[in-house]
Order: sequence, then structure tokens, then C-alpha cells
Amino acid sequence: MATKRRILVQLDNDAHPSVFDRVVAIDAGVEELFSYGNIEPDAVEALVHGAIFTRGPADLKNTAIFVGGKNVTRAEEIFVAVQRAYLGAFRTSVMLDPNGANTTAAAAVLTASHHLDLARTKALVLGGTGPVGQRVALLLARQKAAVWVSSRSKDRAQDVCNAITEKVPDAKVFSTAESHTEGNSNHPEHFNLVVSAAAAGVRTISRAQLTGGEMLKVVMDLNAVPPLGIEGVQITDNGREENGIKYFGAIGVGGLKMKIHKASVASLFHSNDQTLDAEQIFDIGQRLEVA
Amino acid sequence: MATKRRILVQLDNDAHPSVFDRVVAIDAGVEELFSYGNIEPDAVEALVHGAIFTRGPADLKNTAIFVGGKNVTRAEEIFVAVQRAYLGAFRTSVMLDPNGANTTAAAAVLTASHHLDLARTKALVLGGTGPVGQRVALLLARQKAAVWVSSRSKDRAQDVCNAITEKVPDAKVFSTAESHTEGNSNHPEHFNLVVSAAAAGVRTISRAQLTGGEMLKVVMDLNAVPPLGIEGVQITDNGREENGIKYFGAIGVGGLKMKIHKASVASLFHSNDQTLDAEQIFDIGQRLEVA
Amino acid sequence: MATKRRILVQLDNDAHPSVFDRVVAIDAGVEELFSYGNIEPDAVEALVHGAIFTRGPADLKNTAIFVGGKNVTRAEEIFVAVQRAYLGAFRTSVMLDPNGANTTAAAAVLTASHHLDLARTKALVLGGTGPVGQRVALLLARQKAAVWVSSRSKDRAQDVCNAITEKVPDAKVFSTAESHTEGNSNHPEHFNLVVSAAAAGVRTISRAQLTGGEMLKVVMDLNAVPPLGIEGVQITDNGREENGIKYFGAIGVGGLKMKIHKASVASLFHSNDQTLDAEQIFDIGQRLEVA
Repeated sequence: MATKRRILVQLDNDAHPSVFDRVVAIDAGVEELFSYGNIEPDAVEALVHGAIFTRGPADLKNTAIFVGGKNVTRAEEIFVAVQRAYLGAFRTSVMLDPNGANTTAAAAVLTASHHLDLARTKALVLGGTGPVGQRVALLLARQKAAVWVSSRSKDRAQDVCNAITEKVPDAKVFSTAESHTEGNSNHPEHFNLVVSAAAAGVRTISRAQLTGGEMLKVVMDLNAVPPLGIEGVQITDNGREENGIKYFGAIGVGGLKMKIHKASVASLFHSNDQTLDAEQIFDIGQRLEVA
Repeated sequence: MATKRRILVQLDNDAHPSVFDRVVAIDAGVEELFSYGNIEPDAVEALVHGAIFTRGPADLKNTAIFVGGKNVTRAEEIFVAVQRAYLGAFRTSVMLDPNGANTTAAAAVLTASHHLDLARTKALVLGGTGPVGQRVALLLARQKAAVWVSSRSKDRAQDVCNAITEKVPDAKVFSTAESHTEGNSNHPEHFNLVVSAAAAGVRTISRAQLTGGEMLKVVMDLNAVPPLGIEGVQITDNGREENGIKYFGAIGVGGLKMKIHKASVASLFHSNDQTLDAEQIFDIGQRLEVA
Repeated sequence: MATKRRILVQLDNDAHPSVFDRVVAIDAGVEELFSYGNIEPDAVEALVHGAIFTRGPADLKNTAIFVGGKNVTRAEEIFVAVQRAYLGAFRTSVMLDPNGANTTAAAAVLTASHHLDLARTKALVLGGTGPVGQRVALLLARQKAAVWVSSRSKDRAQDVCNAITEKVPDAKVFSTAESHTEGNSNHPEHFNLVVSAAAAGVRTISRAQLTGGEMLKVVMDLNAVPPLGIEGVQITDNGREENGIKYFGAIGVGGLKMKIHKASVASLFHSNDQTLDAEQIFDIGQRLEVA
């Protein structure tokens, strides 16, 4: 029997499945791409059964599932529904990367790790309850950083902290409400790392606050659409230094994000039992650099 | 001129074209799969014309059409519309297999033929007016079995018998209403073969009725979702013997069904003039076994 | 790094993206076809950004965009939206051919050029304000023919003439209202070339008017659906001669149209900076004949 072709089933909640994710899939070595738009969690079971009942378990490593789309919450539900539809050895590998949230967070934290010893880092995550912010906080905590999760609602920030602690029991995570945050963000110099993942158009830190100092070494703004949350960061910044602070923008970390995205898709076809969420995608990024 | 790539146009009436049918198509050697969901009969002509007017008749064996979807009646209308859109030599081969009805029926009857001389078989088809049941009855009659088509409505059962007789003039087919059927099914031992293709959740025969006997040799339940119609049949049964009766479930005949499905799709590309419905698909299955 | 696979993103405004355009794309050497239906101009930017931000500028010649669909006006808006979404070197090549309008017009004018010296030709374009008629008039004017654009509304015919003059400043174009046209078309013998691109079912010229003469050499009807606008033209006519006039129908010029379509799609992958509308597609057709 000839080797089976590598099939990726793309489950996207947007009407038109992402061209971005499709091109990356092809460039990662996918041979047949089945792209679905307008996916709701209800539709998942039948599609997954079609994926798992057509090839024997030994061949199922050549079939995989990618969950994407701009609606991150919906995609997370779909990701859960996919795993629920698996039946023992009748499963495939699956990756979650809605709106690039997982690969962006992984690239950001990996980039930060090049410039900081994360285990000794105090980090502030602005917009820490959004899709990217949550993941950045989780990945930082997993690398043993002390992380302040900031949000307009301290309750929601605490929910994120609790969710992180469930996955990383010894996490050093603290919630801080936007009012406190302003206090904190008025003092970004109290942190070694500041990452802004706030919604587009929200000014999180003004230029005047970034005067440098002993502690603050790395400032990232992950927003892909100007104006950025942190005044003065350029979307293309990739380590630009000013007053002893290194700056990074979304396009600046974009090259690494793309490498992680491609390597993650490629890795789906190594076995049929992988479930790639933020942590696994970060680990793939880390292994890329060692190799 | 290089050889044309093998294109399969999948016309599916579900919103999301079947992943199952797509994987099988790829594994059958299809090189380019054009998958369409939400297909209505009205949309067929333009799509078929796009298929037949883009390559010369000599190359049209490399383009083919697959009609699928959970709504079997709608798929049958689409299958007719496809053939109506052909223009003489400007046609492609086409296969109908909505919800797997044709390949399931072919696999069931072929499996039965391994254990029974069908020309000397008395068969009872429970749920005989449903998509799979009708096809099982037709294929059995075509193999010269005497077939009792059972339904809650004797009129509808008779309609099925009449349709079979139109295709197989010397068919030995009899309609039996559910009330009669209960009489019959109370006596499955009056048949050599009992096939249940009833709707999910309908109990057609109780365990107590399957006490074995001289006549009853093979019992099949083609429902893929438990509870099965025939009490005691396991979905994975593939010839399990009990009291002299051999049992078969949907997954049990699934391996053969998959082989027939793949061989049928592959055969579409041998010429541009094939129309694969239940009978032709059964014949492909039979030739597979001889080969 | 291995060569990138040739990806074509098909943006179609019909619910089901054209099978015709898909088969031609594959036969033109496209390796991965991303087909989108129901495209509205609003959806274009995100899709184009996915196409241009996934490969470096040096590799973007392996990604291209095809704009099609039966609604020609909508497709033209989408074509504009695609170009507006490009960002400097971050762009791809793009081709517009909604409902085959550009390739049909190019094939018609190229065919006419085989039988007439266009720079010395007086041409009448009936249905000259429709998608194909406009393009035929433009291409004829660009080849220095004197062109009468005919329409039921002289104002709309004049709009077409003005649009042509914007692109071809020295164009010899004249508007003629349908009432004048009838006068003219009562005298098709006053022209060397008559092309009918009227809506289906509109009789533009009767057989009695085509008695031949000194001037009229070529008569084309580009309607693909009988009854044709010019009485007596056969859809398959490909130079049939009668009374000194050569006749051409839609299928007659279809072979050349298909060659131009394929060559145009193939040419998209030569560089990432091509914008293929009627003129560029005509030029590709012309180069085909020289080669």
C-alpha cells in the first residue's frame, strides 16, 4: 500500500476559511487541504468521524485537523468538540490557532526569552484577558516568570490567573485591575517585561512612561493594527533599542511566528495523538531553536 | 500534451461536503477534488457544463462527478440533473453514493453472497423502503434471490417492488406490511437471510426470535448507530456465529464497503461514459473479489 | 528552501465557484487552488492580506489571484478591492475574467485580426455596453479600428466610448443608439466587421440583411445560448463562408478563448506584479500566436 497523502482538515468559523492559514499549511507540506468555513461546534462530530473512520489507526497520522477563525472563543469550543468526537485510537492530531493567537503568543514569549531569564522576570501583560494576552500570561508563567495579568475587570483578570494555575500549579500569577494597572503601567519600570495585547485602539502606555531604568528591558506590543497600545512602538520593531529598552512589534515577531506555525502544522503528521494548544506550540518553537 | 490530472467534482447536498467522501476520493487516486456543499438540483447544470466544456472528449475520462450528501432523495435528483446536463460525447462518468447508501448495500449483499447461494435464498429486508433497504432489495433480486420487502406501509413496500421489477423484470419480489412483517419477523426462521435497514431506534427483531433453525443462516443489521434494529447484533459483528446463524453489523461490513467505494471512484477515471448507481457499484465489488 | 507551490486564490461572486475556471486553472499548471464563492468586495482585504503576508516578496510570484463570477460588475469591484489591498512589494499577480468576458473578447478580436487589417477596419459592436461588448470595442479601438458602439441608449454607448478614450486617447470610437443602430444594422454592409454581444434572445440582425457586398467580411455572434442575435450564425461557426462573409459563433472562437485563458493563468506565475484585464489578456493571446 502506498503512503497516504497528508490531509489537513481546516475547521474555520469565518465564512471564508483563512487564506493565511491555507498558504502556511501548503508551505508546511500539507498535500490535501480540506477547508471548511462557517463551522459551528454542532457540525464538528460528523466531520471528525469522516476523518477518523476512513483510514486505519496506523495511517491516521497522515490525517490532521486545524482549528482556526477570527472568533477565538468559538474556535476553542470547536477544538473541544473535535477532541470529544475522537474514539480511542480512532483520532487524529489537532492544532488550535484561531486568529494566530497561539503562534503569536508563542513567538512573543520565545522572543522575550532571548533577552531575559524568564525564571527571574517580572512581567506585566496588558490586555491580559484577551485571546493573545491570556496565552502570553500562561506561557510566561509556565517558564516560571512572575506575571501580572491586567484587565479593566480585576475579576476577569483573576479568572485568567485561576485558569493558569489549574494548568501550572506553581504559577506565580497576580491579577491587577485596569485602575491598578494604570498605577502599574504608570510604573512600567517596575517590570522587566511589558507585553501589550490590548484591543486595537486602546492606549495602554504613553511614551513619557518609558524613560528606561534599571529593571525594564523588553517592551512588546502585539497589536497588528496601528495605533498600537504602547505609544512609540513600531509594528515592525524587532529589538530596536532606546534608553536601554528593546522594542518589539507584531511584524517584528512575525517571522518567528510564521516558523512556529509551519513547524507546528508539519509536526501534526508525525503521529496521530497530538493536541497542539499554546503550550505544545511554544514547545515546538523552543525545539526549533535548539535544532 | 501532458496527461490531464484526475479531477473529481463532489456535489454534496449538506452544508459541509462530506470529509468521509473526500478522504476516500484522495485515497482512490483523485488528484484534484472540487468539493461543493449545499448543492440543489437547480445549480447542477452550470457546474456540469463547466466540467464537460473544459476538456476535449478524449480527455474527459480524467474528469468525473461524485454525488453525495445525507439527503438521499435530494442526491438522487441531483444525480438525474447531472445526467440531463450531459451533451452527447460531452459527458463525464458519475457516481451516486449519498450517505454511503449504494456502497453499504453493495457490501451487504456481496457479504451475504459469501455465505449463501443467493439464487436459492429467501430474504427478508426490514426497513425495505429506506435508502439502503431499497438498494439491498434491488441487488438481492438482481442476484435472483426471492425478496420480501417489508415496510410499515404495504403500499410503499409495493412501490419499491414495482421499481425493482422495472429494472429486473424477472425479479421475485413481494411486499409485506409491517403488521405482516411482524408476523414474518416473528418467524425470521422462515428466511435464509434477514437484513435490517430500518431507521435508527426501531426495534425490528427481538433476541428471543433468533433461536436458529434449519433455514436462517445470515442476519445483518446495517444501522450504524446503536441501538440496532435486531437485538443482539453488534455493530462490529463480522460473521460471528451463534446457534448456526452468522451475524453482521455496519462496521463489520465496513471494510468491504470501503474497498468498494474506493474501487468505484477509481473506476470513474477509466472512461467518461460510466453511470455508477447501486447495480454498477455492486458489479465493481464483485469484480474486485475475482481479481 | 524548496520552490513554493503555485497557489491560485479564486474569488468568485457566485455561490458555487465556477467549475469551468477551476478546471482551466488546473490545466494551466496551478498546483493548489483555493476557491471561494459568494465573495463580496468587503471580504477581499482579509483574504488578500492572507495571500501577501505568508510568503516573502521573492516567493510571491507563486501566489496569484483570479477574479471571476457571473456578476461582471461585482467582479470588477472585487478586482479593484484586490489591488487596493496590496501593499507595495507585498502583492501578487491578479487576473479578471468574470463570466469569461475578457477571454471571450480577446479571442473574438484576435480572430477578427486574422481576417481583417484592424487598423483599416470599420467595426460595429452590437450590445456594445454589455460586459463582452465593451471589451470587444476597447480591444478593437486599441488595434486602431474605427468602432461604432451600439446600445439601446445612446448615452450609455457614449459612456463606453468615453471610458475607451480614457484608456486609448487616440481611439476612433462612436456611439450609436439602438434606433440609429437599426439604421446601421439595416446596413451591416457599411461595416467590415459586425460583432454581436447582445443579451440572449435579442435579435440584432436578420438574415435578410446579410446579403454580402464589398465591405462586410466578418460577422461574429458571441452569444453562447441560442437563439443568437444575428440570424443564421451558428454557435459552432468558425470561419464558415457564405456570400463572401466569414461567420463565427461562441463555440467557434471557444478553442482560442480556452488557449488564451490557460496562457493567462499560467503567466500569472511569471512575476508578482501583473494585473491582467482585457488589454493584457489580449496581448497574451497575441504573443501566443507569434510563439
